[in-house]
Amino acid sequence: MTGTNLRLKLPVACIILEVIIIILFGALVEYDEEVDARKWHQHMKNGTSNYENNFYYRYPSFQDVHVMIFIGFGFLMTFLQRYGFSSVGFNFLIAAFSLQWATLMQGFFHGLHGGKIHIGIESMINADFCTGAVLISFGAVLGKTSPVQLLLMAVIEVTLFSINEYIVLSVLNAKDAGGSMTIHTFGAYFGLMVTRVLYRPNLDKSKHKNCSVYNSDLFAMIGTIYLWMFWPSFNSAVTAHGDDQHRTVMNTYYSLAACTLATYGLSSVVAHDGKLDMVHIQNAALAGGVAVGTAGEMMLTPFGSMIVGFLAGTVSVLGYKFLTPVLESKLKIQDTCGIHNLHGMPGVLGAIVGAITACLASKDVYGDGMEDVFPNIYSEDVTASGQGLRQAISLGVTLGIALLGGLLTGFILKLPIYGAPPDTICFEDSIYWEVPGEEGSHEELACVKTADEEEKMNT
Amino acid sequence: MTGTNLRLKLPVACIILEVIIIILFGALVEYDEEVDARKWHQHMKNGTSNYENNFYYRYPSFQDVHVMIFIGFGFLMTFLQRYGFSSVGFNFLIAAFSLQWATLMQGFFHGLHGGKIHIGIESMINADFCTGAVLISFGAVLGKTSPVQLLLMAVIEVTLFSINEYIVLSVLNAKDAGGSMTIHTFGAYFGLMVTRVLYRPNLDKSKHKNCSVYNSDLFAMIGTIYLWMFWPSFNSAVTAHGDDQHRTVMNTYYSLAACTLATYGLSSVVAHDGKLDMVHIQNAALAGGVAVGTAGEMMLTPFGSMIVGFLAGTVSVLGYKFLTPVLESKLKIQDTCGIHNLHGMPGVLGAIVGAITACLASKDVYGDGMEDVFPNIYSEDVTASGQGLRQAISLGVTLGIALLGGLLTGFILKLPIYGAPPDTICFEDSIYWEVPGEEGSHEELACVKTADEEEKMNT
Amino acid sequence: MTGTNLRLKLPVACIILEVIIIILFGALVEYDEEVDARKWHQHMKNGTSNYENNFYYRYPSFQDVHVMIFIGFGFLMTFLQRYGFSSVGFNFLIAAFSLQWATLMQGFFHGLHGGKIHIGIESMINADFCTGAVLISFGAVLGKTSPVQLLLMAVIEVTLFSINEYIVLSVLNAKDAGGSMTIHTFGAYFGLMVTRVLYRPNLDKSKHKNCSVYNSDLFAMIGTIYLWMFWPSFNSAVTAHGDDQHRTVMNTYYSLAACTLATYGLSSVVAHDGKLDMVHIQNAALAGGVAVGTAGEMMLTPFGSMIVGFLAGTVSVLGYKFLTPVLESKLKIQDTCGIHNLHGMPGVLGAIVGAITACLASKDVYGDGMEDVFPNIYSEDVTASGQGLRQAISLGVTLGIALLGGLLTGFILKLPIYGAPPDTICFEDSIYWEVPGEEGSHEELACVKTADEEEKMNT
Repeated sequence: MTGTNLRLKLPVACIILEVIIIILFGALVEYDEEVDARKWHQHMKNGTSNYENNFYYRYPSFQDVHVMIFIGFGFLMTFLQRYGFSSVGFNFLIAAFSLQWATLMQGFFHGLHGGKIHIGIESMINADFCTGAVLISFGAVLGKTSPVQLLLMAVIEVTLFSINEYIVLSVLNAKDAGGSMTIHTFGAYFGLMVTRVLYRPNLDKSKHKNCSVYNSDLFAMIGTIYLWMFWPSFNSAVTAHGDDQHRTVMNTYYSLAACTLATYGLSSVVAHDGKLDMVHIQNAALAGGVAVGTAGEMMLTPFGSMIVGFLAGTVSVLGYKFLTPVLESKLKIQDTCGIHNLHGMPGVLGAIVGAITACLASKDVYGDGMEDVFPNIYSEDVTASGQGLRQAISLGVTLGIALLGGLLTGFILKLPIYGAPPDTICFEDSIYWEVPGEEGSHEELACVKTADEEEKMNT
Repeated sequence: MTGTNLRLKLPVACIILEVIIIILFGALVEYDEEVDARKWHQHMKNGTSNYENNFYYRYPSFQDVHVMIFIGFGFLMTFLQRYGFSSVGFNFLIAAFSLQWATLMQGFFHGLHGGKIHIGIESMINADFCTGAVLISFGAVLGKTSPVQLLLMAVIEVTLFSINEYIVLSVLNAKDAGGSMTIHTFGAYFGLMVTRVLYRPNLDKSKHKNCSVYNSDLFAMIGTIYLWMFWPSFNSAVTAHGDDQHRTVMNTYYSLAACTLATYGLSSVVAHDGKLDMVHIQNAALAGGVAVGTAGEMMLTPFGSMIVGFLAGTVSVLGYKFLTPVLESKLKIQDTCGIHNLHGMPGVLGAIVGAITACLASKDVYGDGMEDVFPNIYSEDVTASGQGLRQAISLGVTLGIALLGGLLTGFILKLPIYGAPPDTICFEDSIYWEVPGEEGSHEELACVKTADEEEKMNT
Repeated sequence: MTGTNLRLKLPVACIILEVIIIILFGALVEYDEEVDARKWHQHMKNGTSNYENNFYYRYPSFQDVHVMIFIGFGFLMTFLQRYGFSSVGFNFLIAAFSLQWATLMQGFFHGLHGGKIHIGIESMINADFCTGAVLISFGAVLGKTSPVQLLLMAVIEVTLFSINEYIVLSVLNAKDAGGSMTIHTFGAYFGLMVTRVLYRPNLDKSKHKNCSVYNSDLFAMIGTIYLWMFWPSFNSAVTAHGDDQHRTVMNTYYSLAACTLATYGLSSVVAHDGKLDMVHIQNAALAGGVAVGTAGEMMLTPFGSMIVGFLAGTVSVLGYKFLTPVLESKLKIQDTCGIHNLHGMPGVLGAIVGAITACLASKDVYGDGMEDVFPNIYSEDVTASGQGLRQAISLGVTLGIALLGGLLTGFILKLPIYGAPPDTICFEDSIYWEVPGEEGSHEELACVKTADEEEKMNT
């Protein structure tokens, strides 16, 4: 067990990382002109009102995204019967770390202002987005990794995410407001490659823990429903103001609704006796949000959005039923949460839908709105089909960086120095957490234990 | 058990319904001018700023309503010990369906634009409102119906809801922003009539399942608290901008606060040994929100709101204690969640309060604000008492359509072809869901099962 | 047991208090000019648009604060294995009471308008803030008090809170937007003094109940995460519009992120075997929000915010490990939730940080923004160091009023007439609630009981 004792490793990792971040923030980070007291009041001299501060038009979306990151992802992963503390707790830890690290990495790649990184509400949203990709990858290795490994994974993944995001959005000038490519495809294939390298041939020794119980499935539904409800805010959080945000919200809303009906229908077909499978409901119903992450801000129409959502739910359920077992048995990819079905395939689908929708963009449909959605088509730097091509290339680039990055990360995490759990006690909180007893049976035990500790402490 | 096997029925229902909806959306639905790229930018030529897009003044309310629909209603119903999957899961399914169907039905009755339904943030809120009525009815038949029955109920109820809403708001020109009549009264009496027709004389065979356990009551409290917190957003979501939304929020907030104290006081009086009853806290404390659904936007004053809330909580607790048993034993109405106490009586109370408050409307009190709250009184098409009369008539119409509609629907759902559960296994998830084991005891079982499945899948 | 029978006491307390409140609201409370139909439309004659109603710039923050009060505090306290109903339920009761009482008390001290209290969105936020202080104190006496005692505590604490708030903000002109002093320090030391006076030497008779179980810790994490996510909204809810709110949000966000990494690091150091302790994660990770409650709106910089958050998390974890046992054994302070570590010390730290940051305020840094943050420095009524002194004095005043008030309240609550639980059955829901059985084991029992009741009711 000493192998998993983190008394030194975890504190060192947390404190060193945080100290580094604080120093870098001290050296590099400044409030932007909407946050800085002097600059904003300078700005107001031009007749700008406080009510025009971007804060009021982004912060509600930010908070919805924040809830998805901390409650949505955190509780979605609590479906495992004895891994709830780690699901919520490690999600909390790596998210709190990643959003700080992402602020630095994205600030660096999005361009410095006189050597300084400027931060405001949009940088907060982007940092949460980057964090989302890390949490997606976390889903693939859930239960098989130590918090130290997860923090290290976050350090590397956030960095590579920022590079890929820079190439896709700033070099290739592709559009991906909801991150079908940069967040979901990247996070999924990065995580799948990591778990491939960390393959555990004897993981079945822990399989009696690798399943849900009644209440753990209910806790997981909290995560699912929050992700489902707030996905429209996620996809629209950084789109242009006005019709763009409005439209992105509606496209996502209808895509998710259609996806949900497809999910229930398909789940009932493939599960035995026509019973519904919680795994499908908890995950596949969300694929509709992933699949309109790129095209959501475009003139996809509710009709188009629903078709995309319907396809995404279908692909996702079938993936859980038929593909996941094959990935594990044939390709040695142990994907705990099935992120390939929720984020991988729907992410790729979303990228393709985005490329096609871009190809179809025309001045008749977008009018002057073209400037916000496709500035390069508007300025005639590129044709619609050219923009579609950029979208397609971006998918390729994203897949490449994700797979190579995941491979590299996997080998680094494979080193036997991070306190990873042995095959026999994966998916088990008690390795890394002080765990109390169950209701009923172990109750006494738990309390006596606690009571003892109290005595110990009181003396 | 084959009777409840939904392998064919549920997929067919979900997929056919979704395909129909997608086709109708393709044929009929368009973005409104605040969502469409070309139209909005056309609009902006008149000097409108993106910040004036209605999205920013409705979306936060929409998201609060959305949380009430999916988390609030969904978890409120998880109080049953072995029906949590169905409570959250079927709530999720029928809500995802209803909001799409409602968009079409309401769009049709609220008026077409050149043969097209125009959608935007307000249509999304109204669709969620209509969905709320369906979920209220769901509460009456909870545990005794199959998802196929629920989808069919939703198809009919959404349609009748839209007709009633049209008559009340557009023909009778009554005011009902928070839906005391159109949502709560309608949903409650519709559902009560459905459950009356579906009366099961031998339901006591399942009564050992028709009760809560410790954790299921805690999950239910998540639903209760979210409904309670966001009710001010619900009642104000579609009221006029400015003072109207501001006032509606405050009236609802104070009504709920007063209702909560009445609920705790009364619950302690009627429960034995002066102990509090979770059923009362989970439900009656919300009656204050229902009861100001109509008058919330009017100049009810905090004083008036608190009196209404206090009465609503009192009526609701007494209803749970004394009326529900009578309804079941005498009128053969088996109301699983007691919707008559949470939505029925408080809804009627709200309608009456609305009628009285309308009668008292005067130019001295409302000033030019009269135009937003009572346009017909402002334009002198009707006197205050005349408006009050319209409100009262609207209550009658709503009750009539709800009861007749529920009767009709009940007989349709009574047909033995929808896989409804037998009397002996109502309130039980395992009929329709793959259910894992409990903590402790059945744990092994659950996992071995899962493990087997995995093996099956891996081969 | 009759001693804890509340059949008369609780109803009398709830109903009398609510009736008094309703009468006072009827006599004293009016909508302010942004809520009143006539006044707002009068106001609009000066060309004000409905979109400029303060509602739109405060309500999203209000709802986040509301969630923290009812879900955050409520579920954070559900960690006790058999006290979940009381944690969420009593939190609900005393919060619903306190926000009404606070509206009256704060309205009185914040200044009457022609003998009337004017209410609007800001008074709602302030009432929720005051409620927060009461809930903090609740955390200290959790499990050892009856709802009647809690209501009485709320009556007194809300009153003293309003007096202290008036002195600190209006007399001393100190800044404390997020309430490090007025909310956290006040609530913590008030509650600690109350629990000191209510000291139970034989509480160890209930210690087998004074601990968590697996699911109760997961429910508690719901509270923790919501508090963590929405703390930026809490600290910024009543700051000036524009850069102030924007900046407060960012400072709080970074302080919390740094605090979280410190918490995980320290928890792993102090817990045995380097395992993480849920008590630390659930509480200490929030200390960063408390500690920037005063300085959050100032030009603290992200760098400064992170240092403060890091310190707060460190202090808090060490407090749980080493100080809490000493407080209990030496000072006879039985602090159920460890509020001294989450609110007490971090609150004092926040007050000190605020005083220092005020001393450093300069026109170079704030520009014309100085007027919003430090109006007295801007108008040169006081120097920066003078403002710092006012902040320090305010901390002293707050501590004094909190400790004396708590002492007084403790003695009043000590009277044996409120149905407090005996030492042997503290931390137990079944004294005050109808409690169903556990999953598995007691399940039958629970249902038979319910069934019997039903029969009783049906006859």
